[in-house]
Amino acid sequence: MSALDVRPIFYVIGSLLVVLATAMLVPMLVDLSTGHRDWQTFAVSAALTLFFGVLLMLTNRTRGISLNLRQTFVLTTLAWIVVCLFSSLPFMLSESKLGFADGFFEAMSGLTTTGASVYATVSDLPPGILLWRALLVWLGGIGIVGMGIVILPFLRVGGMQLFRAESSDKSDKVVPRAADLALGFGWVYLALTIACVLGMTTAGMGVFDAICHAMAALGTGGFSTQDTSIGAYKSPGVEWVTILFMYLGSLPFVRFISMVRGDTTALWRDSQVRNYTVFCLVVSAVLALYLLGSGQMGIGEAFRHSLFNCVSLITTTGFASTDYTLWGPGPVALFFILTFVGGCTGSTSGGIKMFRFEILWLALRTQVHKLFSPRRVLPLAYNGKPVDAEVIVSVMGFTFVYMALILIIAVGLGLTGLDFVTAISGAASALGNVGPGLGSLIGPVGNYSTLEDEAKWLLSLGMLLGRLELFTVLVMLSPNFWRT
Amino acid sequence: MSALDVRPIFYVIGSLLVVLATAMLVPMLVDLSTGHRDWQTFAVSAALTLFFGVLLMLTNRTRGISLNLRQTFVLTTLAWIVVCLFSSLPFMLSESKLGFADGFFEAMSGLTTTGASVYATVSDLPPGILLWRALLVWLGGIGIVGMGIVILPFLRVGGMQLFRAESSDKSDKVVPRAADLALGFGWVYLALTIACVLGMTTAGMGVFDAICHAMAALGTGGFSTQDTSIGAYKSPGVEWVTILFMYLGSLPFVRFISMVRGDTTALWRDSQVRNYTVFCLVVSAVLALYLLGSGQMGIGEAFRHSLFNCVSLITTTGFASTDYTLWGPGPVALFFILTFVGGCTGSTSGGIKMFRFEILWLALRTQVHKLFSPRRVLPLAYNGKPVDAEVIVSVMGFTFVYMALILIIAVGLGLTGLDFVTAISGAASALGNVGPGLGSLIGPVGNYSTLEDEAKWLLSLGMLLGRLELFTVLVMLSPNFWRT
Repeated sequence: MSALDVRPIFYVIGSLLVVLATAMLVPMLVDLSTGHRDWQTFAVSAALTLFFGVLLMLTNRTRGISLNLRQTFVLTTLAWIVVCLFSSLPFMLSESKLGFADGFFEAMSGLTTTGASVYATVSDLPPGILLWRALLVWLGGIGIVGMGIVILPFLRVGGMQLFRAESSDKSDKVVPRAADLALGFGWVYLALTIACVLGMTTAGMGVFDAICHAMAALGTGGFSTQDTSIGAYKSPGVEWVTILFMYLGSLPFVRFISMVRGDTTALWRDSQVRNYTVFCLVVSAVLALYLLGSGQMGIGEAFRHSLFNCVSLITTTGFASTDYTLWGPGPVALFFILTFVGGCTGSTSGGIKMFRFEILWLALRTQVHKLFSPRRVLPLAYNGKPVDAEVIVSVMGFTFVYMALILIIAVGLGLTGLDFVTAISGAASALGNVGPGLGSLIGPVGNYSTLEDEAKWLLSLGMLLGRLELFTVLVMLSPNFWRT
Repeated sequence: MSALDVRPIFYVIGSLLVVLATAMLVPMLVDLSTGHRDWQTFAVSAALTLFFGVLLMLTNRTRGISLNLRQTFVLTTLAWIVVCLFSSLPFMLSESKLGFADGFFEAMSGLTTTGASVYATVSDLPPGILLWRALLVWLGGIGIVGMGIVILPFLRVGGMQLFRAESSDKSDKVVPRAADLALGFGWVYLALTIACVLGMTTAGMGVFDAICHAMAALGTGGFSTQDTSIGAYKSPGVEWVTILFMYLGSLPFVRFISMVRGDTTALWRDSQVRNYTVFCLVVSAVLALYLLGSGQMGIGEAFRHSLFNCVSLITTTGFASTDYTLWGPGPVALFFILTFVGGCTGSTSGGIKMFRFEILWLALRTQVHKLFSPRRVLPLAYNGKPVDAEVIVSVMGFTFVYMALILIIAVGLGLTGLDFVTAISGAASALGNVGPGLGSLIGPVGNYSTLEDEAKWLLSLGMLLGRLELFTVLVMLSPNFWRT
């Protein structure tokens, strides 16, 4: 291999910054129209971002962008960090003036669709900043879906090679259809968002709040315009609409495209969708029965709150309809587990993701079967495709590193002075891009404002690692990656 | 396959009960010699155990014991449970009168060399019971070493096929050399125990306490005759001796045999031993530096306490020289991680074990390398032997199920009313056969006396699963296991 040619990398990052600068005009216009002087924040941020974006594009122009494997790894991680840096400008320049660690955390939390906030209170923030947070989640969602369909299967990280399209199988270069695909999803994503806004307003929410919450729900991000999240509206209608669109945001978007194109059963034929849906329903039902049994609430409330908060955590959205950490130690431990699960791959949600559990289950079943009848070989297939040992080892390696990273980040958080529950649930929440953790500080009705800067950097790193499926980042720690 | 022939299974269990009955005579003689009327407890228990043991042997006599794969799985799990049931008799019949759940827990904790106790206070227990607890750990230790060398590699659970001896590679039956090998280890084990007793008494401990602690240290069990464990002696000498013998108990015993036979470098040539030793030293040194930096203690104390408690947790012994949960949230999170590690395979210690981390590291390094240079294939070798995909998948599957079981058991413990920290650390401690957890209840200076019976059963199950390397038990949950 040759030395790393950074020009195409910088060029793509430059163009992403130009898109970002354009996006900043939206909250600027909102602040202008409501007569809020915070519009200047966005004007300055947009100008700075545009300047660097254009600069990068001009200085790194090459004829035709084609990226090899190593360039794609570097681009993916670097793009995420650079976009995050510029996205944090409004938070730092706005009248609420976050510090660098806080601003970066908030931007990373948005772009990775985590939804953890360092704002102690959000209800008095200017509308531009509120919209910017929701917009980051929404844009991050597009980036993630595009990445999950085009880039990660190409990079073969964590078993994502299962989702390689036939056309890219033979090629060693990223097919430059990312833009095409992103546009295709863009329409579905936009249509779903508009549907969600309509649903929210019908249920009685104001238009601005509805737009913000719709973007956060579809992006499975969980940023709210209220300090006590969706629970603040005390509206079962709003909660049901939110449940539906969080769920839709955690489904594989390719299947939506297929459905739009006329293949109406595409979604349900995907075993990932089926198992995922059943899992959500079973867990919620069991929890609801427990809540009923413990006499904490009536039947309607029990099922609604149970479904809402389970779906919110499993989809890694992180909205809350009530403070579920008060439901008792059993449910709390369950919610900790749900932090790991995640939605379907190719969606906006994070976590380990359902397809990995399916592969793990298949592999373990085969392994157990082999123990007592070593000579019978069971063929392994997933969604009709054969699964080879490489995929199994990839998936298992991913899961192991995922668990190990949670423990390592938890130790780091512990060293900043956080207690055990906050440290381990915060680590799991960041890596799974969920948002809320457990404990009084960072629980569903809490926020990350009181944490040390070191803890915020560590959690930002966790969010990035989780979002990029770990290995996209970790691969660059290998000396051989740079040597060859 | 044919129907399961249970006769050889029952015959072996019967003979194990006869051994157990004989072992019960030791605490009986001690109680007799100290004039304690609790000797009757052991006399009755021994008689009962002997009766059922002989009954099983007589009714299930077969010509030559040869076990097939399925029989070995059933035998291993069933033997552990039946021996545990009879071992709990003295606890239930003694003047301290434990209930069934408590007695079974204490016996399981001893035989699996976990060392978690349901006695709220142990310092006022009759000497016979104190010795019986230590003896269970010691006997359990022999059982585990024998099982780790003969049975588990044959059963191929959790990557243990790596340790198959050449002679057993071709056979489909367990080579009945278990007794031979156990006898060989018996001598080494006995010699080490006597050396430990001598060391303890030289350091100033009384002979009875020294014998109990020596058996608990070599068996990495951690039952103490004092309520505050080794810390009660306030003797650096005792602590150093304990560190040495806990460490020796967590090394692969086959290497000791080789050394006795003249191959003096056998131990250090084993990569598992090297990496394990370096890990223990590095973690202890880092923790000691943290303790020094935080000004909690002087340099001598910092290094001694750090090494003692790290080694105690890594070897899964569970002794404590001081209440390390007061060292701050960073160390507490670290101690939680150390609960997972475990010693070397073929030792008396539990946990995930060092060789699995070595295999995981090798597999992950290869996987990362493959990501950026897909065409170069790195050969995978461990201790000079090639490692195939089956071993990697086995090891990864083991680690995943291990982590998942901790989470599942933690939810169960949460449902009995335990808080999150107690639930998750208790689950990890049980599965790793460590002993103490975190939190005020079950921490290093606490005990399991206040837990609900349901929690004790769940933890007993966890100890059994951990001790039998999970899959030996889990395999029987597969309907196909019984169908074929």
